[in-house]
Amino acid sequence: MAEWHVLEAALKARVTGERLAHTYRVLETARRLGRIHGADEEQVAAAALLHDYAKPLPPAVLLDEAIRLGLNPDPVERAQPDLLHGPVAAALLLEQGLVTDRAVLQAIAVHTTGRAGMSLLEKVIYLADYVEPGRRFPGVEAIRAEAEHDLDRALLGALDNCLVYVVQQGWLIHPASVETRNWLLQQMQR
Amino acid sequence: MAEWHVLEAALKARVTGERLAHTYRVLETARRLGRIHGADEEQVAAAALLHDYAKPLPPAVLLDEAIRLGLNPDPVERAQPDLLHGPVAAALLLEQGLVTDRAVLQAIAVHTTGRAGMSLLEKVIYLADYVEPGRRFPGVEAIRAEAEHDLDRALLGALDNCLVYVVQQGWLIHPASVETRNWLLQQMQR
Repeated sequence: MAEWHVLEAALKARVTGERLAHTYRVLETARRLGRIHGADEEQVAAAALLHDYAKPLPPAVLLDEAIRLGLNPDPVERAQPDLLHGPVAAALLLEQGLVTDRAVLQAIAVHTTGRAGMSLLEKVIYLADYVEPGRRFPGVEAIRAEAEHDLDRALLGALDNCLVYVVQQGWLIHPASVETRNWLLQQMQR
Repeated sequence: MAEWHVLEAALKARVTGERLAHTYRVLETARRLGRIHGADEEQVAAAALLHDYAKPLPPAVLLDEAIRLGLNPDPVERAQPDLLHGPVAAALLLEQGLVTDRAVLQAIAVHTTGRAGMSLLEKVIYLADYVEPGRRFPGVEAIRAEAEHDLDRALLGALDNCLVYVVQQGWLIHPASVETRNWLLQQMQR
């Protein structure tokens, strides 16, 4: 992994303004959640800092980059390329030699949809992005509080909220978000 | 296809009481929707009459039957075998020689989840089951009215409602229901 100041400089060349402020709130939240739940500090910090590295790219560019980088976008991602900003960020960071740690890259890649079999690091990043103190939507306070105590219950709450929101907006549902929720429910019942 | 009185007798040997009353309300609703939207009358009647043919089977029996009939249940269906009552009904009706029309069998098989690429017949059966006059839940009146005019918009409303309900109940989501909704949204945008 490149040194912290190099990662920060690369980020700030792409991400600015309110999105950069969001990034630093996610970083702070992820560090706290990571400490509580015992995640690796360096991995948490790098994944949080860089999770939205590709978010400013316009949809058409995200789709072109995803194809160029061999990510093989599915029909839902082709219709809603913003879903690709995690996977594209991870692939760009690897290509540019900024991050080589596969666990960090995976946490960045799946921070929007989750995945069946999510690691502790991936859960911390997903939830920090969802509950950072700038987030304001119905139900966020309960999930924010739950994340301090039970990461899986908080994650289920976040996935449930996201799914209902996507339905209400009339957007396509990414199959991975449903696979993630089904996997988590079955894990929690064990 | 066996004669109508044979199908009815086979049904009544399995389905009784309120579920039988529901079946006849679905039959009446499906016939009306089928006439409005131009579906084949005989196919509509047979699929509506027999859609819940396997519904009274207990979960463990549904799962055993699904395996015996070669339906290859996925992990979500193994955890929630009631999701198999459509596919098991279709396979039993074929095995018993009561229905051989593939379009009718398919409409019975997918009446709980839908499928990407649903036919007119399949949409009529799915919606008749969802809006028959015995159904009472928030939003049903709007979908019932929409089904008379625009089958796709009504189907989207029903799929949206189902997904939100399944999330609220803490149940697993069948991937096919999400694929159906994604397919339908993309069809409607064309």
